[in-house]
Amino acid sequence: MRKIVIGVMGPGSGASETDKKNAYQLGTLIAQEGWVLLTGGRNAGVMDAASRGAKAANGLTVGILPNASDRGLSEAVDIAIITGMGSARNNINVLSSDVVIACGMGAGTASEVALALKANKAVVLLTSDQQSQLFFKSLSDNNIFLATSPEAAIAFVKETLTNRCPTE
Amino acid sequence: MRKIVIGVMGPGSGASETDKKNAYQLGTLIAQEGWVLLTGGRNAGVMDAASRGAKAANGLTVGILPNASDRGLSEAVDIAIITGMGSARNNINVLSSDVVIACGMGAGTASEVALALKANKAVVLLTSDQQSQLFFKSLSDNNIFLATSPEAAIAFVKETLTNRCPTE
Amino acid sequence: MRKIVIGVMGPGSGASETDKKNAYQLGTLIAQEGWVLLTGGRNAGVMDAASRGAKAANGLTVGILPNASDRGLSEAVDIAIITGMGSARNNINVLSSDVVIACGMGAGTASEVALALKANKAVVLLTSDQQSQLFFKSLSDNNIFLATSPEAAIAFVKETLTNRCPTE
Amino acid sequence: MRKIVIGVMGPGSGASETDKKNAYQLGTLIAQEGWVLLTGGRNAGVMDAASRGAKAANGLTVGILPNASDRGLSEAVDIAIITGMGSARNNINVLSSDVVIACGMGAGTASEVALALKANKAVVLLTSDQQSQLFFKSLSDNNIFLATSPEAAIAFVKETLTNRCPTE
Repeated sequence: MRKIVIGVMGPGSGASETDKKNAYQLGTLIAQEGWVLLTGGRNAGVMDAASRGAKAANGLTVGILPNASDRGLSEAVDIAIITGMGSARNNINVLSSDVVIACGMGAGTASEVALALKANKAVVLLTSDQQSQLFFKSLSDNNIFLATSPEAAIAFVKETLTNRCPTE
Repeated sequence: MRKIVIGVMGPGSGASETDKKNAYQLGTLIAQEGWVLLTGGRNAGVMDAASRGAKAANGLTVGILPNASDRGLSEAVDIAIITGMGSARNNINVLSSDVVIACGMGAGTASEVALALKANKAVVLLTSDQQSQLFFKSLSDNNIFLATSPEAAIAFVKETLTNRCPTE
Repeated sequence: MRKIVIGVMGPGSGASETDKKNAYQLGTLIAQEGWVLLTGGRNAGVMDAASRGAKAANGLTVGILPNASDRGLSEAVDIAIITGMGSARNNINVLSSDVVIACGMGAGTASEVALALKANKAVVLLTSDQQSQLFFKSLSDNNIFLATSPEAAIAFVKETLTNRCPTE
Repeated sequence: MRKIVIGVMGPGSGASETDKKNAYQLGTLIAQEGWVLLTGGRNAGVMDAASRGAKAANGLTVGILPNASDRGLSEAVDIAIITGMGSARNNINVLSSDVVIACGMGAGTASEVALALKANKAVVLLTSDQQSQLFFKSLSDNNIFLATSPEAAIAFVKETLTNRCPTE
């Protein structure tokens, strides 16, 4: 029976200290819920921090790599999906995630948020950047949720999952 | 010897009348320069209008389809590239374009602009939407050009191509 | 730390009873070794049987789906990777597998064996079909191993993994 | 209106002299029919020879590159589709071709023949290799045609196209 997968997307080398701290905390909270963490898999920035946070809480971590080998993989990734298709793998990241959390912003992350909206996925933005918030809200008011902390982001995820699969 | 390929990206069914008018004009101008027009290939919105504009000026048109067959192809596309990979084909659209012009905005178009910036491509935004302009300028000030008309967009493309490949 | 992933590829609806029995047994043996099972994820033929076999032994199962949703997913898959890219996902199947086992044969399976050889992966053929054996041996004598039982296939996998990562 | 696209697939650096001579001749004949030639785009083996043959007859050539840039592109390719997705692009090669001709054999070519059969495409094998003929005939007797010369291959293509689109 398929496990719930939560994607955490965010910058690699361009991640800020706040982004990485938030990502680590997101990973921990996701693991504590019993969900699988999915990231872009690289040993940098938000991907690595989220994966390390999840492992610290004994979670299961999946990394969808852009490369054709496991070179550059985060050591905190349990299962490496090796796509060899560069940034086209961003679409797999979002399709495979029940909910997408964007932690920080950059060109790659923006593509993932946009692809998630195109696929009609719920997206939580965890960033203080107002341009990002206004822009993505203008693209899809219904599917974008703004969060100001990892805890608030996870609360949104829970609500989304509950609304999707009502318990009787 | 490889021809110059200019990508015109924009909404399908969500395109405005202005977007479609601009796209048609972009297609015509691209064809008049002797460049190949590349779009997402579908018979809707900006993709269809740009392709029809290029054919009206005897241009050559390439369409990169998301589907696994040529169902939904614009009649103005000469060469259909059938990817069967949905929105992951957006990355092929931008990698295959020497310059990317975004005509209008939507989730799919936003993903293409973001993927183009990630791939270090020059992108011209032809839209009056201020949120888009501010957001993408904040992602990559150097590679985003704002245009207010198809003619201005093409002038930017010419300049970009010239700077890249100086004639001796 | 990345887990070892063994891919089991084979026909869906075209799988024979022997193929499915072998696949179930392969899944069980893979799980007993502590390896992750990777398949094409669909609820048919070899993919489904291998996943069920692995779950019967408390293994972890990954399914790389061709569709853009989890429609058609085997109930024995734990982690669904949703690619939305049709048979192009076959390349991800083989790149993500430390060793590929082909159980039975068909057009899709043949593409996976060929892509695995192209990527320089070790491939075990578990099939009594002589044409397959002769053809793939002619493509790459070094990387093709013929097995006549699930147990023999797993023995080959073990040997390959040991030779690749020598214990000190 | 979409042009007819004929794909010629075959080995790169592993191509024999006969393969390359056949590929050049296939390219010329395809161009003389007014069809577009599609190859894997690289400046090696069958891809390069077929493209050069087509250009010698003033044909139009499309190359679907595995790389993320136009590095390694054949000089005889007019339109480069830059996928950045490695061998996963093989599926695009076959989906985009009205008929696929395999000229010579190797792991990459075998994957393309298999993917073409999976997609229910007609495939012409132009190779004297008996293992290939027997194997692919065993996979799909209906869609595999054996040719012993470029002229015979083109005759099969014509017949296939006519049967598909009957003239009134």
